[in-house]
Amino acid sequence: MSAFIYGVGTSQFGKQPELRAEDLAASAVLEALEDAGVADVEAVLVGSVFGPPGLSQRVLHALGITRVPILTVENTCASGTSAYHEAVMGVENGRWDCVLALGLEKMTATGSGPIEPEPTDAEGRAGMALPAIYAMSATRYLACFGLTERQLAAVSVKNHRHAIGNPRAQYRAELSVEDVLGSRMIADPLTLLQCCPISDAAAAAVVGRQRGKRADVRVRASVLQSGDLWDYRSEHVWGYELTRSTGAAAFAQAGVQPQDLDVLEVHDAFTISEIVATEALGLAAEGHGAELLDSGRTALGGTQPVNPSGGLLSRGHPVGATGLGQIAEIVWQLGGRAGARQVEGARIGAVETLGGGTAGIDGNACVVSVLEVG
Amino acid sequence: MSAFIYGVGTSQFGKQPELRAEDLAASAVLEALEDAGVADVEAVLVGSVFGPPGLSQRVLHALGITRVPILTVENTCASGTSAYHEAVMGVENGRWDCVLALGLEKMTATGSGPIEPEPTDAEGRAGMALPAIYAMSATRYLACFGLTERQLAAVSVKNHRHAIGNPRAQYRAELSVEDVLGSRMIADPLTLLQCCPISDAAAAAVVGRQRGKRADVRVRASVLQSGDLWDYRSEHVWGYELTRSTGAAAFAQAGVQPQDLDVLEVHDAFTISEIVATEALGLAAEGHGAELLDSGRTALGGTQPVNPSGGLLSRGHPVGATGLGQIAEIVWQLGGRAGARQVEGARIGAVETLGGGTAGIDGNACVVSVLEVG
Repeated sequence: MSAFIYGVGTSQFGKQPELRAEDLAASAVLEALEDAGVADVEAVLVGSVFGPPGLSQRVLHALGITRVPILTVENTCASGTSAYHEAVMGVENGRWDCVLALGLEKMTATGSGPIEPEPTDAEGRAGMALPAIYAMSATRYLACFGLTERQLAAVSVKNHRHAIGNPRAQYRAELSVEDVLGSRMIADPLTLLQCCPISDAAAAAVVGRQRGKRADVRVRASVLQSGDLWDYRSEHVWGYELTRSTGAAAFAQAGVQPQDLDVLEVHDAFTISEIVATEALGLAAEGHGAELLDSGRTALGGTQPVNPSGGLLSRGHPVGATGLGQIAEIVWQLGGRAGARQVEGARIGAVETLGGGTAGIDGNACVVSVLEVG
Repeated sequence: MSAFIYGVGTSQFGKQPELRAEDLAASAVLEALEDAGVADVEAVLVGSVFGPPGLSQRVLHALGITRVPILTVENTCASGTSAYHEAVMGVENGRWDCVLALGLEKMTATGSGPIEPEPTDAEGRAGMALPAIYAMSATRYLACFGLTERQLAAVSVKNHRHAIGNPRAQYRAELSVEDVLGSRMIADPLTLLQCCPISDAAAAAVVGRQRGKRADVRVRASVLQSGDLWDYRSEHVWGYELTRSTGAAAFAQAGVQPQDLDVLEVHDAFTISEIVATEALGLAAEGHGAELLDSGRTALGGTQPVNPSGGLLSRGHPVGATGLGQIAEIVWQLGGRAGARQVEGARIGAVETLGGGTAGIDGNACVVSVLEVG
């Protein structure tokens, strides 16, 4: 591919009801433009789920970004990476030379919160919200593959530990498996500390056609797919096949194997999500994700750290901003700019985001992107 | 440009609480695919404002459209034409050979309705909703240019009369100026019959790289812009400059003059909107839109009919679906398929959609597209 990342930026992640969406967006956009060393962009793609309509224009115009096309993209939890993907494809296809992708979510604002199912959405109205879908995946996975609840909890322990090195993460704590298992039950077997939090944040990337001046990172692949029909009779747990298919397409596009990746940010919305994602991306065979985790390979200090930022579980999950938060982390890692959580010598990294939640569909959207230094 | 419209389709427009979003989408998508004579598309761009998140995947997967990238685009009232614009640009730039654009809005569903201003949006909380913004435009316009309230009301009379020929329109009625002026006051001087209604509908277009088999319509231009900063000191009424700038860019791209257009669908969300849009698009000089209307040139039977479908005022305004409803109307007009509301011999047509509502900005988004037979 011919797209490069010129620069990235993010706000602090966390519950920040005192900040306006404008404040969050300004932190991310100004840092990304400064990092990129550019003053103007030709268009802006914004990932945001909870709106309100017109939010993108309001926050961008407050920053003096006017006239250029502004487009808000919604793809549930993959909205941020979908905006990024559209930016990359626009550069790749010659539409733009330099474009901004912004992810923005202010979940503590009025009107945000649980996704209200439509009157005709019987499964949604019965309670099939995302924690329930992931809890059922975890239950099935535990039964099929002999995963223990302690192994599941260990994902949260690892990612919270990673977040200690990330000053912008929402939760930074040394936790024990007992802490995680002893926290309040949300959707059996997923306890509170196995579920991503409500977060406010923004994250941004400037994408362009030449090598970047500062963040010298090339996009080797970016693939967006939506899921197929899925129900309890399907061969794999929810989200596995969509992640596998999207990852395989991205790795083929990049010409890399899973073992070539030095660092990954994956969609650990719940502890079970990281186990399934690492398998679906080929870091471990199906059913062997817990062994991978137990081996320490995916922890900082291992050979393939996963979620060095703390992931959704600990950095936070401001829905529309998450994907660009992942991109920013990988860009920092590849540039040797990740501070205390730096993966030494990282040259190739990947991001995976899974947008889910619709009953009967194996994920609304999955985006996998592969990035490389230079 | 190198994009063609292969086919279009719409649902019925109106308040249809008994129909699910799936039903509306199916009507539009199946008709568009049938009209295009294609079975598969490479991607789907969906314009929708009121969600819920994941709606696009749900309705498309119910139609068997899976795996391909699906992207929901929000650009307030211009969401439908923004989805269309992205489809056109994707074809134009060689990204896709054949792609579906869908506009979908179920405004009578739970969770839809007035846009809730954020806590920090002081103007929104003070009541600066869209009817107020347009009412202030109308008040200023009446004062500056000597437009009378009867002339303003005549826009609604014309468009309701046009809708009589459109079996899919929400309101089809022969109204008098007195009927319009005598209806309930919404935001002075705009009475109920001068405001677009709440509507449920879907509309779709298949866009591709070759000449279409059935709907032999070429996209001559498609331009999307967002507005600049605007307040009461600005030179023109709200939305004028953004519409003018976007229209001028589109006409230059197409190599046409405003007088070359045989038929137009413009964003008559309120009566004043059509007056301002026709001026901003160059059909009349600024301040002379009412004379244009009085002349009969923009009525069916005149030389440049505007809103033969009935427009937003009478066909309805299902927000995310509106732009693709406009596209469908122009495609039918250029194909001689518009029945009782056919503009005889129409060869070149244009669509204009204005997304608005954010205080201090001259429109969130404007899309102008020029279409031509063959």
